[in-house]
Amino acid sequence: MSYSKPVVLITMGDPAGIGPEVILKSLKSEDIYWRMTPVIMADEGVLNYTRAKLDIDISWTTIRDISEIDPKNAGPYVLSMSEIPMDDFAWGSPKADQGLVATNYLIKAVDFIRDDLAQAMVTAPIYKSALVEAGYIYPGQSELLQGITKTGHVSRMLVGDTLKLSMVTGHTPLKNVSDMLSVELVYTVIRNTHQALTMGFDVAEPSIAVTGLNPHGGDASLMGAEEEAVIQPAVSQARAEGMNVIGPLSTSEVYLRAVRGEFNAAVAMYHDQGVIPFKLLHLDMGLTVTLGLPFVRTAPVHGPAFDVAGQNRADYRSMLGAIITASNLAQRDWMNW
Amino acid sequence: MSYSKPVVLITMGDPAGIGPEVILKSLKSEDIYWRMTPVIMADEGVLNYTRAKLDIDISWTTIRDISEIDPKNAGPYVLSMSEIPMDDFAWGSPKADQGLVATNYLIKAVDFIRDDLAQAMVTAPIYKSALVEAGYIYPGQSELLQGITKTGHVSRMLVGDTLKLSMVTGHTPLKNVSDMLSVELVYTVIRNTHQALTMGFDVAEPSIAVTGLNPHGGDASLMGAEEEAVIQPAVSQARAEGMNVIGPLSTSEVYLRAVRGEFNAAVAMYHDQGVIPFKLLHLDMGLTVTLGLPFVRTAPVHGPAFDVAGQNRADYRSMLGAIITASNLAQRDWMNW
Repeated sequence: MSYSKPVVLITMGDPAGIGPEVILKSLKSEDIYWRMTPVIMADEGVLNYTRAKLDIDISWTTIRDISEIDPKNAGPYVLSMSEIPMDDFAWGSPKADQGLVATNYLIKAVDFIRDDLAQAMVTAPIYKSALVEAGYIYPGQSELLQGITKTGHVSRMLVGDTLKLSMVTGHTPLKNVSDMLSVELVYTVIRNTHQALTMGFDVAEPSIAVTGLNPHGGDASLMGAEEEAVIQPAVSQARAEGMNVIGPLSTSEVYLRAVRGEFNAAVAMYHDQGVIPFKLLHLDMGLTVTLGLPFVRTAPVHGPAFDVAGQNRADYRSMLGAIITASNLAQRDWMNW
Repeated sequence: MSYSKPVVLITMGDPAGIGPEVILKSLKSEDIYWRMTPVIMADEGVLNYTRAKLDIDISWTTIRDISEIDPKNAGPYVLSMSEIPMDDFAWGSPKADQGLVATNYLIKAVDFIRDDLAQAMVTAPIYKSALVEAGYIYPGQSELLQGITKTGHVSRMLVGDTLKLSMVTGHTPLKNVSDMLSVELVYTVIRNTHQALTMGFDVAEPSIAVTGLNPHGGDASLMGAEEEAVIQPAVSQARAEGMNVIGPLSTSEVYLRAVRGEFNAAVAMYHDQGVIPFKLLHLDMGLTVTLGLPFVRTAPVHGPAFDVAGQNRADYRSMLGAIITASNLAQRDWMNW
């Protein structure tokens, strides 16, 4: 474990979205610099434009290589990696070539962490269609990171004041979810959630509730077989290893009890089963932690929000939470290459 | 349309659950009797036991046939249809033969409404496994009513102070949902929801938002094809007929905007997609209206709650809302045999 401050990489995301704005606004917080050295991987022209147009009072040190970080300079640093022609740039109008730039930040960030030049990554949102137009087969940043790190499985943990929850499957068509579930996969996400709570969030003996897949948690196999065939064995395996896990329960029961504080986290089977309650309870507050990767990666819970980009209206608190949590997790060394 | 008070049938549900308690407590409300003539279809022994043990101050008129209703007697009436041996009865311990009794109330209630001896039905919760043990192939009361009325499709509308929403599919394994969706089915539920709002709830020009099936509403077909192939054409058909419908949208967007009052109702594709947000927002308040049946049927949103049965702790307000709404809907004559 490193006792010096971690270097936290912050990728700018889609230039036409709110990423640049919420990053710059977050990095005005004094709470950042005693914890970490933040490095924005970005297009400096877009950052300059954002700072000027939105009148954000912040300065930074521009570097061309991550090795230029100076221990006596707390940052923030901007590692400028592209030169988007600003006469072709417009907030709210994503373009495929500009989206491609955002994927390059991700790929380079993985290199830096692999080489121990940085200890965590925070990713501002991209426009998924830009990924696809740029030729990537991944439907999101998590899947891209999974692919280039050759990770077997990643899952998303949503972290809010009221609720923490992980989802076993991610950006996948709903009709494929049942076939994707396996005892091993459900168990892995339970275990990763348990590790995140103990090692990342300092919960000594976390209690975790697992949802079913089907209505009423399958209602004793009247409405689906996955609870008995897949989810229950995974819960049993985790319990046999000493984890305090219960389930499968009906989804509503899990969340209502979690809100009352009966569980430290929930594990849901698919995207909407987790995202619907999280958004209702937290709106665009809270943050995402990606479980399964060999390094720390967090993100805000919102998308690029093209409809409000460039209007000085974006709420930066989800991004600020993601940055601080990334730093905290990196200090705790709970997953590492 | 009948201008006399409607006869509202209230089926007792599983004797071992909270049905008897919440019915008797609801019928203490003075708000009932100027609106309707309530008839509990029940086991009178269980009602007597409930009244005595829980010290509920209520009296009723016992009848053996629905024709015994006397216009000069406002009720409540108890139509006693079974004689469960009380030495075999225990709150919280459902038994298959006692569950079977509850299904008989339903079947008889359909007969009464078909013969215009009653105008609406409110059903207290049953234990679904009891249905199955009793030999029925239906996973719930809605499906049983659908079956015995030979209705093509029924759907469930949840009605709360903050949110009204319908679900296109019901008590079905999640893996089957995609195959069950069709343009006709989604359109039918949109139309039934529209009719419920206009004819049942007096919303002159309701706005309705329709969810997608997949993450982010399919995200322009990156994550599933049903939005474009099925949901969008159904929305277009409804719009072509003059209904104010938008979608498919991502589920979170639909609910967040509905909570802000932007829509009068939402249409979701499957059980948890509707029930999770509804329960989070309303807990066990609110009520269910079954759409598609040739008569008015409402129900409370909670189950038989065996864990609190017999403890004088059940909240009767969902049942009271279901009873009053059934009466209101019956007055409006918006669906009828």
